[in-house]
Amino acid sequence: MRILGVDPGLGVCGYAVLDCDGGEELVEAGTVASNDKLPIEQRLNQIAADFEAILEKFSPEVVVIEQLYSHYAHPNTAILMGHARGVILQKCAAADIEVRSYSATKIKKSLTGNGRASKEQVQKTIQVVMGLTEIPQPPDVADAIAAALCCSNTTAVNS
Amino acid sequence: MRILGVDPGLGVCGYAVLDCDGGEELVEAGTVASNDKLPIEQRLNQIAADFEAILEKFSPEVVVIEQLYSHYAHPNTAILMGHARGVILQKCAAADIEVRSYSATKIKKSLTGNGRASKEQVQKTIQVVMGLTEIPQPPDVADAIAAALCCSNTTAVNS
Repeated sequence: MRILGVDPGLGVCGYAVLDCDGGEELVEAGTVASNDKLPIEQRLNQIAADFEAILEKFSPEVVVIEQLYSHYAHPNTAILMGHARGVILQKCAAADIEVRSYSATKIKKSLTGNGRASKEQVQKTIQVVMGLTEIPQPPDVADAIAAALCCSNTTAVNS
Repeated sequence: MRILGVDPGLGVCGYAVLDCDGGEELVEAGTVASNDKLPIEQRLNQIAADFEAILEKFSPEVVVIEQLYSHYAHPNTAILMGHARGVILQKCAAADIEVRSYSATKIKKSLTGNGRASKEQVQKTIQVVMGLTEIPQPPDVADAIAAALCCSNTTAVNS
């Protein structure tokens, strides 16, 4: 099964394409960025075009995307992330691809055993688990790989 | 100038098409609803298709859409509204239509003189200002008309 993990954001989205048939092979991972000098609607249109291209290039069976919750310290950041997440979800539906949502806590717990693991712990664990020569950078990429791995693990346990 | 006012929401979006060349003529107003039994990505895809059709049918020069802010009592509702608002904004950019955002306070103050006017006050003022035989229902429609009127007033003052 091919999984696309996504860490949604208005400025930077992480994405990771993982093939998990027995083992787990990282096909590609990277970021999609929008130009913060443009109005929000044009930034969202940029994200939409980039994700359409990723969905078409990699044809994932499942897209895994982190759930958002409101940090009380930064409620408006979560609303802006919601804009980007909404656009990505719509593109998945338009391409008829199944979507699964997991909380950040579930993803971190599945990977590190600790639902409150730091960004650095997630990055280092990903490096070890996937046998990468370098720490995945930026953290958005590590979070996208973590989301995809969580889906792979959850699917393996359930099947 | 033709203005499309939008009151964004995941369940129900209000919309209103207003022609304002000298006077203000309400061309059409209504709601776009998504089926709450469907997964969120399919609901967003429904909203996307409905707004694409509205943009194509009415060809507005400007889309006016209420800004979201986080109510501390319902932060996750604002995040979900952000998903719908993001999809609508992206469709405006894809259709190359200018977007303006106003806060709910600015819209209410422009219409009623009171930035904290109730939903009922907004509905009744819209009925009077637009000379409607009935109160605009549901409130989402009144809010969309109010957003479009606020843009019309702001443009008239500035030009």
